[in-house]
Amino acid sequence: MCELLAMSANVPTDICFSFAGLMQRGGNTGPHKDGWGITFYEGKGCRTFKDPQPSHQSEIADLVSNYPIKSKAVVCHIRQANAGAVCLENTHPFTRELWGRNFTYAHNGQLAGYKEALSTHKLLSIGSTDSEQAFVWILEQLRLNFGDQRPDDSALYRYLGQLSQRVARFGVFNLILSDGEFIFAYCATKLHWITRRAPFGPAKLLDADVAIDFKKETTENDIVTVIATEPLTIDEQWFKMQQGNWLAFVGGEIVGQPEAII
Amino acid sequence: MCELLAMSANVPTDICFSFAGLMQRGGNTGPHKDGWGITFYEGKGCRTFKDPQPSHQSEIADLVSNYPIKSKAVVCHIRQANAGAVCLENTHPFTRELWGRNFTYAHNGQLAGYKEALSTHKLLSIGSTDSEQAFVWILEQLRLNFGDQRPDDSALYRYLGQLSQRVARFGVFNLILSDGEFIFAYCATKLHWITRRAPFGPAKLLDADVAIDFKKETTENDIVTVIATEPLTIDEQWFKMQQGNWLAFVGGEIVGQPEAII
Repeated sequence: MCELLAMSANVPTDICFSFAGLMQRGGNTGPHKDGWGITFYEGKGCRTFKDPQPSHQSEIADLVSNYPIKSKAVVCHIRQANAGAVCLENTHPFTRELWGRNFTYAHNGQLAGYKEALSTHKLLSIGSTDSEQAFVWILEQLRLNFGDQRPDDSALYRYLGQLSQRVARFGVFNLILSDGEFIFAYCATKLHWITRRAPFGPAKLLDADVAIDFKKETTENDIVTVIATEPLTIDEQWFKMQQGNWLAFVGGEIVGQPEAII
Repeated sequence: MCELLAMSANVPTDICFSFAGLMQRGGNTGPHKDGWGITFYEGKGCRTFKDPQPSHQSEIADLVSNYPIKSKAVVCHIRQANAGAVCLENTHPFTRELWGRNFTYAHNGQLAGYKEALSTHKLLSIGSTDSEQAFVWILEQLRLNFGDQRPDDSALYRYLGQLSQRVARFGVFNLILSDGEFIFAYCATKLHWITRRAPFGPAKLLDADVAIDFKKETTENDIVTVIATEPLTIDEQWFKMQQGNWLAFVGGEIVGQPEAII
């Protein structure tokens, strides 16, 4: 399995603290030694740092841990390979263009028996993972369903929820998807989230002896949501997502969830 | 204008030496201060480091200069903006999927009056540069002309040459395009290249006080071609490409050129 991390914020915010904790799970406090990647959005553009090397000994991960790139939407993944070799083309996150935006995707879980049902015609996988194939299938379905025009947000989120449930029939499918504006999270088995806002307090990482006082790093208007497979801090209250549920965040706030829950 | 750099090699080779020279032109020995990017292929996968900051003061450029990522195909660009704001979505290289491969592209020059002729329907620009629009137009034309199947190499290179000439009607269009296997270069006004092979000798950068002895860095079977807007070394013989000409390299060797020249 793998671990997911994502951030949605209302002001450009760095993710160094959370990233430093997660990277320890890449071969040190966790078994996810088969590569890692992180995508930072800045406007409509994004940049991805990735490495098929274990994150806890990656020079590039060190740079990202210490270099505060500020972003309002971040998608991150560390990999424990189950399908597809350990190589760059199988390293998450994956990014593709749709409707003139960069869509970025990372998956935790494993699918089986999906090849016919999730086959694609226009968008093709580059690597050999179940994860990438599910991604290009989702994008192709969005295109087939909505055509050349992006729908309104609520229709998009609802349909992403339906597509996620269809993929999840083939195994475990915990998903993070972003276009730089929203972060969409689908929980098949395990995802947690926390929203930090004023009054900010201290926090301590679970995986490394690192503490932070968010009060010193933020202004009182900041709203920052972090989503992760497992909670990253030991002294804060994280919410556990319900299985089969999805949430959409913009600017750190929930902007969409299944109607039955609202 | 901008500067281009590309490498084609028959064994995974690092580009630290050439990159260190080029990065000096990003605001120090040259005026190209509006961002930079570099894409390394490893198999079918690729990773891109990019920064809208000037390269000569970029921490990420420092990492890439000192961290020997070995690759058989590299595409690099430093930008002096003329069309489109200085931001991440306008920073080259650009990468898109076609025929299950990552196609990566960088452009030196400026286009005008192209918007109708180079409009696209399925692939859309994410940023606002003439460069990215020419890229998505080229990919869309490849798809329209050859369909869902990649043609053989010579047909692909010939058609890329024709498409490049069509784009070049709208201004200056020096182009580097790669799918990780080939490096395609089209020269509208200025491109130089050099192939290094045994017996290897020393070389000294034009833009920094750095020298290298390639004999110590290589084996006698290595073949490495570097393509750049301007020669990067002062003590080697670089070839100047003819205007309106294209070349395709695989494994450091020329594998395609216009028939009139063969």
